[in-house]
Amino acid sequence: MRLRNKPWAQKLVVEHPEAILNEPNPEEKINWEERFDDFSKPLAIEIGSGKGQFITTLAKKHLEKNFIGVELQTTAAGMILRTKLEEKIDNLQLMCADAANIAMYLPENSVDIIYLNFSDPWPKTRHEKRRLTYKSFLDKYKRILKPDGHLEFKTDNQGLFEYSLVSLNNYGMKFDYVSLDLHNANDEVFERNVETEYEHKFAAKGNPIYCLHAHFVQ
Amino acid sequence: MRLRNKPWAQKLVVEHPEAILNEPNPEEKINWEERFDDFSKPLAIEIGSGKGQFITTLAKKHLEKNFIGVELQTTAAGMILRTKLEEKIDNLQLMCADAANIAMYLPENSVDIIYLNFSDPWPKTRHEKRRLTYKSFLDKYKRILKPDGHLEFKTDNQGLFEYSLVSLNNYGMKFDYVSLDLHNANDEVFERNVETEYEHKFAAKGNPIYCLHAHFVQ
Repeated sequence: MRLRNKPWAQKLVVEHPEAILNEPNPEEKINWEERFDDFSKPLAIEIGSGKGQFITTLAKKHLEKNFIGVELQTTAAGMILRTKLEEKIDNLQLMCADAANIAMYLPENSVDIIYLNFSDPWPKTRHEKRRLTYKSFLDKYKRILKPDGHLEFKTDNQGLFEYSLVSLNNYGMKFDYVSLDLHNANDEVFERNVETEYEHKFAAKGNPIYCLHAHFVQ
Repeated sequence: MRLRNKPWAQKLVVEHPEAILNEPNPEEKINWEERFDDFSKPLAIEIGSGKGQFITTLAKKHLEKNFIGVELQTTAAGMILRTKLEEKIDNLQLMCADAANIAMYLPENSVDIIYLNFSDPWPKTRHEKRRLTYKSFLDKYKRILKPDGHLEFKTDNQGLFEYSLVSLNNYGMKFDYVSLDLHNANDEVFERNVETEYEHKFAAKGNPIYCLHAHFVQ
């Protein structure tokens, strides 16, 4: 969802180029080695981080990994940045950028996990190409994921989940896990689940959270 | 579900070998040409026909196709048989038989559609192999389906649907259609949906019906 513009967020983003890449030029190679203490650690990225509850919580829990949060809206990105700075989350880097360029921002075969959480459903058929599980995005995810990497997708949107099951399957991705009600799954995926802010509110109403884990076949 | 034994059903099955194959020997070739007026018509089979509301309704609607209903329980099979005889549904043949033998009962590349409706979920992991969407069953469906044939699966059981999404995907099947709430899908699949007796009761309570259409890749 779109947030009201917050001038402080815009300012914070501009003031901290060491922590957040602000609309980087896709033609210019990003020096990730310089941006992380140890870029050889496992790398997880979230595409569409919103206000960042998921990625900041996960980064604090997993100091043995590196994290990149990608968020298009400056206000939201600024809010994640504030958390990162206040809580000194050094294994998290941020990008205020369009996911369509993701394969130009990251090296091939560099990512262990891609997280898509509560992505915009773009319900109209004419907007299919904007959905983050549309095949042109899958092309990009495949490029940047390591051969043994995988995708973890959560949504409360029934239409987007149905669409994504077909889209990922038709692309040739193999499913590792499907839940139509993650919060009542009573399994290890739910045990280690980290909620987004949106997920928390939505699940509290008793609505189901859909979840799919899948990997590409080489 | 298991029905109470009805002696009349057992008797009817035995009396009508021209309409129903009663536990046929899988080693003996079935002469389907003899059992249908025109075996060259498109062929649809339902595995686990229960009391037969689905397959009898469909057969009456589609005289241009042939139908085979397979049901393990004699009482249920006898109930379908009674409908077939009373309503003179000549394009429907029945089998009281185990689905595990399906590939021995039907010629290779002979079937256009396989229907699985509200199959037994066999929820315990140790019973996985009995689920009709387990890979050994998919092997058999692949053999009997024509290259352009496909599978249509409906269930109200969340666990079985989750399992089946993964199983069919991992087998390499391509999904053509997924709905997590068929009765509210407001699409052409729902428009031509034929309910089973079980589906009718279940959906009337407002519970979702899951639906998956998929085909094999040669």
